[in-house]
Amino acid sequence: MNIILASTSTLFGGEYLEYLKAELIELYKGIDEIIFIPFARPGGISHEEYTEKAKSFFKTINISVKGLHEFEDKTEALNSAKGYFTGGGNTFLLVKTLHEENLMSVLKQNVEKGKAYLGCSAGSNIGGQNMKTTNDMPIVYPPSFDCMGLVPFNINPHYLDPNPDLKHNGETRETRIKEFLTQNNTKVIGLREGNWIRRVGSTITVEGSESTRIFEQGKEPYEIEAGSRL
Amino acid sequence: MNIILASTSTLFGGEYLEYLKAELIELYKGIDEIIFIPFARPGGISHEEYTEKAKSFFKTINISVKGLHEFEDKTEALNSAKGYFTGGGNTFLLVKTLHEENLMSVLKQNVEKGKAYLGCSAGSNIGGQNMKTTNDMPIVYPPSFDCMGLVPFNINPHYLDPNPDLKHNGETRETRIKEFLTQNNTKVIGLREGNWIRRVGSTITVEGSESTRIFEQGKEPYEIEAGSRL
Repeated sequence: MNIILASTSTLFGGEYLEYLKAELIELYKGIDEIIFIPFARPGGISHEEYTEKAKSFFKTINISVKGLHEFEDKTEALNSAKGYFTGGGNTFLLVKTLHEENLMSVLKQNVEKGKAYLGCSAGSNIGGQNMKTTNDMPIVYPPSFDCMGLVPFNINPHYLDPNPDLKHNGETRETRIKEFLTQNNTKVIGLREGNWIRRVGSTITVEGSESTRIFEQGKEPYEIEAGSRL
Repeated sequence: MNIILASTSTLFGGEYLEYLKAELIELYKGIDEIIFIPFARPGGISHEEYTEKAKSFFKTINISVKGLHEFEDKTEALNSAKGYFTGGGNTFLLVKTLHEENLMSVLKQNVEKGKAYLGCSAGSNIGGQNMKTTNDMPIVYPPSFDCMGLVPFNINPHYLDPNPDLKHNGETRETRIKEFLTQNNTKVIGLREGNWIRRVGSTITVEGSESTRIFEQGKEPYEIEAGSRL
């Protein structure tokens, strides 16, 4: 496999995908066209506008982009594509759309064959075992929470450390992930903004500017450095 | 109906349910025993310990508490009870448990007949039309997101204003609720900590120390003061 699962598309104060540019040139080496999957986007901008945003970044690295929503036969479009990028938004909406159109398994099979895949945020969640560690609001009801399982764990994108100054009783991210572990025996990667997971063949590493917090059943959460294998 | 749906059980720096004490004396007037529904609690403390916590508060207002988990026949326990309190935790776990044991509709029917109901956080979410505006992580997959609909809107408990200092690209609460409204035409009450919804008969008001933010499809979000009718 040849995949990047990134915490976020955009760093605070940065431009769309800019911080990943060198990595994406490597990921998509030899490919001049990819399919963009815009289905996580619930509002604000349309699938067309969202695809335009991806197009204008990928133009800078000489890759053309087609939105999956443009195709009549989406299964055929996925099967014919050379690479993929799933953008962020709402994971519930993304997973519902992919399952209802029977595209989750088609995408999985293609990526498992070695086609390049980039996911950001919700697009990274679907690379995990299931979407049970998304941060998103359940605005629609998907027929299943199962995802592609491109990696043998779950991802929590936009991982955020507790803020000791916050006078608020909502759960911290760490508390939420520990709650997940009371119900599921699946490792969770708390991926801070600036970090991504890289899989090349069977080697999986965590990369980026921050350390990464790992949560496992029956263990205290721990930190690993960029470059560590997962 | 006679209900309170509160944003939180505990104010920052306060004691469990303390800020609601006068309201709860009024809510449960004439009642000396209630059923506590502990099913939202995924970890940390057991159903027994969680029920003990509720018991020790309610002792101070001369109400005894039984945990619903203690009963063999939970439907019968709900039908025989004089009042209810559903505690906070994880809304997905609470809704899954109530649907799987066919208790959501039993509880709804009893509360609609006029029996007193208190919900905090996840316990308030289930008073709304559905759980699609919870803040919780989807750690389990419920058979449905539908809730009791004791009020003709949805609740977002622990409503939190955007923090302009946060250098982070995760969605704000306001963005999440606006995303909900792209997919659902249901009013959402952004209930800040310190506030609660009170329903007496057919009159529904919002009460507490803060103003309340209302979200409706096709409108800018707006604020209403404590005491306003909903």
